[in-house]
Amino acid sequence: MPAAPLTSLDRLAIHTFTLKPWDLERCCAALSAAGIGGITVWRQHLEPYGTAQAAAIIRAHGLRVPALCRGGFFPHHDHAGRCSAIDDNLRTIDDAAAIGADMVVLVCGAVPGMPLDQARGQIRDGIAACLDHARSCGVRLAIEPLHPMYAGDRSAINTMTQARQICEDIRDPLLGIAVDVYHVWWDDRLADEIRLAGEQGTLFGFHVCDWRLETRDLLNDRGLMGEGCIDIRGIRALMEDAGFQGFNEVEIFSLWRWQQDQDAYLAEIIDAYRNHT
Amino acid sequence: MPAAPLTSLDRLAIHTFTLKPWDLERCCAALSAAGIGGITVWRQHLEPYGTAQAAAIIRAHGLRVPALCRGGFFPHHDHAGRCSAIDDNLRTIDDAAAIGADMVVLVCGAVPGMPLDQARGQIRDGIAACLDHARSCGVRLAIEPLHPMYAGDRSAINTMTQARQICEDIRDPLLGIAVDVYHVWWDDRLADEIRLAGEQGTLFGFHVCDWRLETRDLLNDRGLMGEGCIDIRGIRALMEDAGFQGFNEVEIFSLWRWQQDQDAYLAEIIDAYRNHT
Repeated sequence: MPAAPLTSLDRLAIHTFTLKPWDLERCCAALSAAGIGGITVWRQHLEPYGTAQAAAIIRAHGLRVPALCRGGFFPHHDHAGRCSAIDDNLRTIDDAAAIGADMVVLVCGAVPGMPLDQARGQIRDGIAACLDHARSCGVRLAIEPLHPMYAGDRSAINTMTQARQICEDIRDPLLGIAVDVYHVWWDDRLADEIRLAGEQGTLFGFHVCDWRLETRDLLNDRGLMGEGCIDIRGIRALMEDAGFQGFNEVEIFSLWRWQQDQDAYLAEIIDAYRNHT
Repeated sequence: MPAAPLTSLDRLAIHTFTLKPWDLERCCAALSAAGIGGITVWRQHLEPYGTAQAAAIIRAHGLRVPALCRGGFFPHHDHAGRCSAIDDNLRTIDDAAAIGADMVVLVCGAVPGMPLDQARGQIRDGIAACLDHARSCGVRLAIEPLHPMYAGDRSAINTMTQARQICEDIRDPLLGIAVDVYHVWWDDRLADEIRLAGEQGTLFGFHVCDWRLETRDLLNDRGLMGEGCIDIRGIRALMEDAGFQGFNEVEIFSLWRWQQDQDAYLAEIIDAYRNHT
């Protein structure tokens, strides 16, 4: 079924990293003034405030917080490194609870030279070690599969299938998946995996941006919706057909967009959300 | 079984594009002088000579030609475009036969905005339309799965699994797969697919280079073997365990390496071939 056009901004959330030049306060004020429903907070934007003040600012602007970004980076060559990563994730879960975030997004990690299947085992064990604390805090954990071009050092979880396998290994209602169109649009198993995740109750998050054909930078040249080749509306239809009712989160890293006037950019984002999402 | 270290250069072939600043004659002379067994020719390096003269130069230097690069780019929105692509592939097959190349490598193509499964259907039909001519010329066709970061406009075939599906649809002894470590190293189905391809007799080509962690350019920043995170020797072992006995082809696109003295670079390539392949 085709997805209905998005007119309301209630289910729109914007990642603070999308508007990186702005601090959290400026970001909350602009989003709230535009009638946008949610904000996904990155730790870099949280740190200058601390969680209590950040929570007060977000609350004062009436914004909901689908997610805190980001936890993860579980694999390490040594035991101490893996323990330290788990500790860091426990603190991230605390921070998420403190600002009222529904979930922590996990960029799972990879270590150059470590076989990817070994890294996936360490990721599974690391997530499992965090779940009791997540439960006590009422925070969900969302595995975000990352594009295979990040398999070298950012994530050994590069497909929805791999994310599902970890969810099935652990089987905890607090563990699910964040689907980012940038990372998964190319995968011929995408439709099946979204449907399966819907059945398993693991569709936690949905991130949108676009894939620019002339990508100039592997990390920071994502396109605004409509600027690239991803069938974003088609993927949103898959998500909604599978029962997803959460936020549509705009997550764009762009060296070029960050140089632009951010108020004008925000207006473009809203336009692209209505016309190309 | 671990792969034995490569001491002889008999099974080493170098793509002319790896040493892009050199013309075909210079390339043949240098490879031959170094005792390298093969050269894979790109059409850009063939054109200034024409096939008859190019064939004579290659023969005079005693080099074998595992492949001509590249055919493909089958999908188009209109019928005329698809016919024109097939015609171009037929000419490429002629050129391959004329220079004694064993196969034509296919970069299969993708059209921005066309659903990838539709593109894969057009790729299958395009390849099927070329096989009679390939047979009459005694030239094999090798589908090269390209990394998912090229799915937007270069290839809708992004995994070994998708390449195998086309081989199984068509089932022709002249149709197989070129495995490039750069494109497939991240795939958790790689070992299974290489074994299957060995059983099906479709392991036609093997291309090596490395994945640099700090990739600066999506197209032209491949690493020399040993400069990145790919377990090249492990993948070579998979290929050889599956029965592959062809050339190990060094295919590196690098804006940085092309600025280097190419004689010194060739010496580095040989060293990396012996120590990291």
